[in-house]
Amino acid sequence: MSKPVGCKRWVIAEGFIPAAGHGPAPEMRSHEALSLLNAAEHEANVEITAYFSDREPAGPYRFTIPPRRTLRLRFNDLTIPEPIPTSTEFTSVVESDTHIVVQHTRLVSRQAEYALMTTPAYPDRPAS
Amino acid sequence: MSKPVGCKRWVIAEGFIPAAGHGPAPEMRSHEALSLLNAAEHEANVEITAYFSDREPAGPYRFTIPPRRTLRLRFNDLTIPEPIPTSTEFTSVVESDTHIVVQHTRLVSRQAEYALMTTPAYPDRPAS
Amino acid sequence: MSKPVGCKRWVIAEGFIPAAGHGPAPEMRSHEALSLLNAAEHEANVEITAYFSDREPAGPYRFTIPPRRTLRLRFNDLTIPEPIPTSTEFTSVVESDTHIVVQHTRLVSRQAEYALMTTPAYPDRPAS
Amino acid sequence: MSKPVGCKRWVIAEGFIPAAGHGPAPEMRSHEALSLLNAAEHEANVEITAYFSDREPAGPYRFTIPPRRTLRLRFNDLTIPEPIPTSTEFTSVVESDTHIVVQHTRLVSRQAEYALMTTPAYPDRPAS
Repeated sequence: MSKPVGCKRWVIAEGFIPAAGHGPAPEMRSHEALSLLNAAEHEANVEITAYFSDREPAGPYRFTIPPRRTLRLRFNDLTIPEPIPTSTEFTSVVESDTHIVVQHTRLVSRQAEYALMTTPAYPDRPAS
Repeated sequence: MSKPVGCKRWVIAEGFIPAAGHGPAPEMRSHEALSLLNAAEHEANVEITAYFSDREPAGPYRFTIPPRRTLRLRFNDLTIPEPIPTSTEFTSVVESDTHIVVQHTRLVSRQAEYALMTTPAYPDRPAS
Repeated sequence: MSKPVGCKRWVIAEGFIPAAGHGPAPEMRSHEALSLLNAAEHEANVEITAYFSDREPAGPYRFTIPPRRTLRLRFNDLTIPEPIPTSTEFTSVVESDTHIVVQHTRLVSRQAEYALMTTPAYPDRPAS
Repeated sequence: MSKPVGCKRWVIAEGFIPAAGHGPAPEMRSHEALSLLNAAEHEANVEITAYFSDREPAGPYRFTIPPRRTLRLRFNDLTIPEPIPTSTEFTSVVESDTHIVVQHTRLVSRQAEYALMTTPAYPDRPAS
């Protein structure tokens, strides 16, 4: 591929990590995750900042995507510089030093049923 | 962040506020909301206009998002200049004096089950 | 609003009208619809063309959206120049002589449950 | 139509082919598919590359879309140069020599219920 795939900034407007044993319904667990693609021939260095309604933003959370690889990142695995608060809605801004593609995935489980809901992230490409 | 996050106009094509005790099914309640992000260092002044199939538009509904904050806005909390009619489909145009990100969220509850459906808004960026 | 809202061409990649009493499950009915917004001060003249996997496209289906109004259009109400075949997947291209916003809506009903699924259409803006 | 419909590269961030008799729940089967539109007057020659978290990409998978036609492509029908591994998350990059439109479709079946979930693909248009 001659041109880089994706863009350098993405926004996921809706995030929510339920507290343990807590959520809209006790039998419902939600796993919030990001699916990231780095189709380039070099590493992508990525930073996530989480925004809230009633406090200063958290982060940046830093990680790396190897060349020609995808990465599945669960929000509740982000612990440095601080865990993302549970039971709190947040919005994530994902910034990379190279072009990537980001999608938001939510796995909802209730008893015997599972549902995987995916929502496209917003590709915040600068106006050319 | 050196460049502003998002854009100044967003469109949410599908909105619907059920009347109290009314809706596709009596046991189903829907909460229509917008998730908004202002990642900038200054306030965002926002206006919403609601369009309908059989009457003039309602609004503008005015509110402010503090710097570096998200805002969750429920459509049935919009009362000035007039409440948005219930049991009526509408489309919202969200305009801000600075760059923001908008997503549409619908919480559907039926008896013991909950579902959170999110739909991306349309970022109406002017052609550059 | 100083600049027109939306764009002149939209694509809905996934469409399907079940035959009467037919579908993935007998108790499931689906209503495919488009939500359209014309935020401008003049009428929008719109044409839909439906593409299929094994026959020539159908249409154009012509209609008008009044100024400052939304329009809900059900695919099975399109009859001129021909009804869209049932039990057949199709893709729609929506073209307007002025800027509009389009979203795809699917109402799925099963016994006592209803679900409204919305999918954004693809805004086919020409590269500037 | 005077201008081509769509763009030449699309990304589907979330893909997953369950192994036979395997998946989040035994009674749940998922059919991952792409809906593609070629609205042009000539063939579209398309290549898909699948990216993974822990191995080199698979592909390219090559196929053709006739003029003025849609194509429904199931991921588990892709066998040359190799089948896409099952029970493995992957991301697809779809590249065409002419403009096309792509959407991701997932049919989930559980006992008597069916759900068709569609997610828009990311139109990776180069910055103009």
